[in-house]
Amino acid sequence: MTRDAPVLGILGGGQLARMLISAAARVGVPCHIYTPGEADVAVQVCGRVSIGSLDDSEAVARFAGQADVVTVESENIPLSALETVSASSLLRPNLKAVAIAQDRWREKQFLSSVGLPTVVHARVGSAADLGAALAAVPMPAILKTSRMGYDGRGQIAVGSEAEAVAAWSALHSVDCVLEQRVEFVAEISVVAARSGDGEFVAFDPGLNRHEDGILRTSQVPCGLDPAVPRAAVEATRRIVDALEYVGVIGVEFFVLPGGDLVVNEIAPRVHNSGHWTQNGCVVDQFEQHVRAVMGLPLGDGSRHSDVTMVNLLGDEVLDIDRHLRNPNAGVHVYGKSPVQPKRKMGHVNLRSPLSVPSMLDR
Amino acid sequence: MTRDAPVLGILGGGQLARMLISAAARVGVPCHIYTPGEADVAVQVCGRVSIGSLDDSEAVARFAGQADVVTVESENIPLSALETVSASSLLRPNLKAVAIAQDRWREKQFLSSVGLPTVVHARVGSAADLGAALAAVPMPAILKTSRMGYDGRGQIAVGSEAEAVAAWSALHSVDCVLEQRVEFVAEISVVAARSGDGEFVAFDPGLNRHEDGILRTSQVPCGLDPAVPRAAVEATRRIVDALEYVGVIGVEFFVLPGGDLVVNEIAPRVHNSGHWTQNGCVVDQFEQHVRAVMGLPLGDGSRHSDVTMVNLLGDEVLDIDRHLRNPNAGVHVYGKSPVQPKRKMGHVNLRSPLSVPSMLDR
Repeated sequence: MTRDAPVLGILGGGQLARMLISAAARVGVPCHIYTPGEADVAVQVCGRVSIGSLDDSEAVARFAGQADVVTVESENIPLSALETVSASSLLRPNLKAVAIAQDRWREKQFLSSVGLPTVVHARVGSAADLGAALAAVPMPAILKTSRMGYDGRGQIAVGSEAEAVAAWSALHSVDCVLEQRVEFVAEISVVAARSGDGEFVAFDPGLNRHEDGILRTSQVPCGLDPAVPRAAVEATRRIVDALEYVGVIGVEFFVLPGGDLVVNEIAPRVHNSGHWTQNGCVVDQFEQHVRAVMGLPLGDGSRHSDVTMVNLLGDEVLDIDRHLRNPNAGVHVYGKSPVQPKRKMGHVNLRSPLSVPSMLDR
Repeated sequence: MTRDAPVLGILGGGQLARMLISAAARVGVPCHIYTPGEADVAVQVCGRVSIGSLDDSEAVARFAGQADVVTVESENIPLSALETVSASSLLRPNLKAVAIAQDRWREKQFLSSVGLPTVVHARVGSAADLGAALAAVPMPAILKTSRMGYDGRGQIAVGSEAEAVAAWSALHSVDCVLEQRVEFVAEISVVAARSGDGEFVAFDPGLNRHEDGILRTSQVPCGLDPAVPRAAVEATRRIVDALEYVGVIGVEFFVLPGGDLVVNEIAPRVHNSGHWTQNGCVVDQFEQHVRAVMGLPLGDGSRHSDVTMVNLLGDEVLDIDRHLRNPNAGVHVYGKSPVQPKRKMGHVNLRSPLSVPSMLDR
C-alpha cells in the first residue's frame, strides 16, 4: 500500500496550529499550513509550509488544492480567503460558522435565532445607531468592535453616554456592538466536537478566570452545580447542530447569580480553555478536532484527571524551570519570540487525581 | 528578547525522531533532523530537515554545526558520523555509550566490567572462535550478529553445533556473539534518564512480551515482586553512571526463575517499551530525553495511570478505527508507507486507572 494519507491544511501558523500539527501527527495525519509569517511557531513543526498573505487568493487557492480538508486556527481570517478555500476544498468548520463567529453582531443574531440568551446588546454602525444603542442598553456597558477582537482587544468598558461616545471614537468608529455588562458569578466554557455524521462529544466544561480580558486559568471540574455545566453543554449542542458544524468549537458562557446562562461568544476552533485536555484526557481537543475534520472516529472526551490550566503570559515564560520542576505540571511552551507583555507564550496544566467523575461518566 | 532557542539535532528520521520532535515542541525546543530518506516519517513534522547519507561526513559536519546538541534515534549509526558530530557539537548520549550499545560484544564486556550479570556468551569472529564458543556456551543458544541487529533481525536460534555452523554461514560469517538461551520467567525493561548533572530518574519498569523477536506489548505496573523492578532500576543507574550517560536509555532484562536478573541489551535512546509513558505520565520518555539532553530539569517520572502498550505491526494499522473508538486507547500512528509485514506502524496505549502506586511513590 503506497496510498498517501489525506492532508489537513491549516490557515494560520500560531500556537493553536502548532498543537494541531503535533496531534495530527499522533494519528498519522500530515499537515500543510498556510501562514503569512515565516517565523510563526507552527512552521517549526510542519513539513509542508506555504508562506503567503491571506489576501492573495491565487496562493490560497493553490494551497487549498493541495489539501484534502482545510481548517482554521482563528476566526479572524478574511472571508475572501475562506470563500476561496470553500470553492476548491472541504472547509471545516464551514464558511457560515466561521463567518458568524468573526462578526459579533451576526453571532448575537444567530444565537437569538436558535433561542439562546445573550446579554442585552445593540449594534453601533453609525452615530445615529449609537444614540439608539444607548437608549436600549443599560449602563454600565462594554463597547466591542464587531470584528477582529480577541484577548480583550477592541473592547472598552463604558459607564456613561459620554464615555460611550468617546469609546466609539477611540475604536475609530468601526462597526461595534454595545453590550450590557452583566453581573455574573462565574465564566465557564464548553469545548466540544461534532463530526460530519452529527455525532456530538463535549469535554467537561471548565471554570475560567480572565484578567484584563485575557484568559488566566481554566479549571476542571468547574465546581458548580452539575445542572449548570449540563445546560451549557446542551446549549453548545444546539449551536453546532444549527450550524451543521464539523470540528471542535469553544463556547463561552456567563453564569448569572441564579444559575442561568448567557452565551458570551463562540470560537469556531480549538480553544485556550480546552488546553487542559492535553493532560486530563486520553484524546485532547487538538486530536479531537483533527479526528472530527478528517472524518475519523471521535474520542469519548472523558476526563481521567483534574486539571487547572494556567496561561504563561509575557515574561512569565522565562521562569519556566520552576514549572518544569513541578512533578504535577504538564508544560507547554510555544516557542514564540520576542517575549512581549501579556503575549501568550505557553501554558501549564497542573494535574491532580480525579476528584469527582467526569461529567460523561455520571 | 529575540535570542534564538537552542536547537536539538537528531540523527535519524523514523518514528522515534518523529515523537521526539513533537515532545521537543511542547517544551519550546526546535529540532533539526539529518536523515537519508526524504520520505521518512519525521520529515513531516520537522521544520528543519537535512537529507543526506550518514557516510557523508562533510554534510554531517554541516548539520552538527547548526545544532546546539545532537542526539540519535538509533544506535545503528556509523561511528564515523558520531565522531564527526562529537568534533563540532555536543553529542548526547556520548560517543562511548552509543559505540558500546551498537556492538553486542563490547556491550557484554562493558556490562561485566561494571559487575552486571549477562547470559553465558562467547565472541565469534572466526571459524576458530566458533569452535571455542561452542565449547564454552551450552546449547540451546542464539547466534547474534554483533552489529546492526534490531527487532529480532540478525539472530538465529541454534540447538546443536551443526546448526551453529550453518547459522554463522547464513549470517555471512560476520562478527557474532553466541549466547546461551536462558530460561526466563519474564522480560522487563527500565527506561530511565540521566541529566548532565548526574540526576537519575527512572520510569516504572514494564513487563514486555515479544513475538518473533519483536516487542508486542509492554505493561505497567509489571506485576512482579517489587524487589525485581527495583533491582533493575539500580542496575540501570549503575550503567548510566559508568557511561556518564546523558539522555534516556532503555535497558532490557531477563528475570530468571529465582528472581535474579541478567541484562539482555542496552538501547542508548528512547525505547519502544517506554511508549506507554505518553499516556501514563505527565512527562513522557520523549520529553524526558529532550529535557535531559538540552539541560532542562527532568520530570519526576511518576506514573498516574496503568497502561498496556500494544504495538501495531504491519496491516494491523489498517484496523485503526477500532482503536480510535476505544475510549481507553491512546492511539499513535507513525504515518509510514508502505505497510509491510511486521513493520512497526504505530502503537496503542490502553489506559486504566492507577491500580498500585507508581514505584516512585512507594
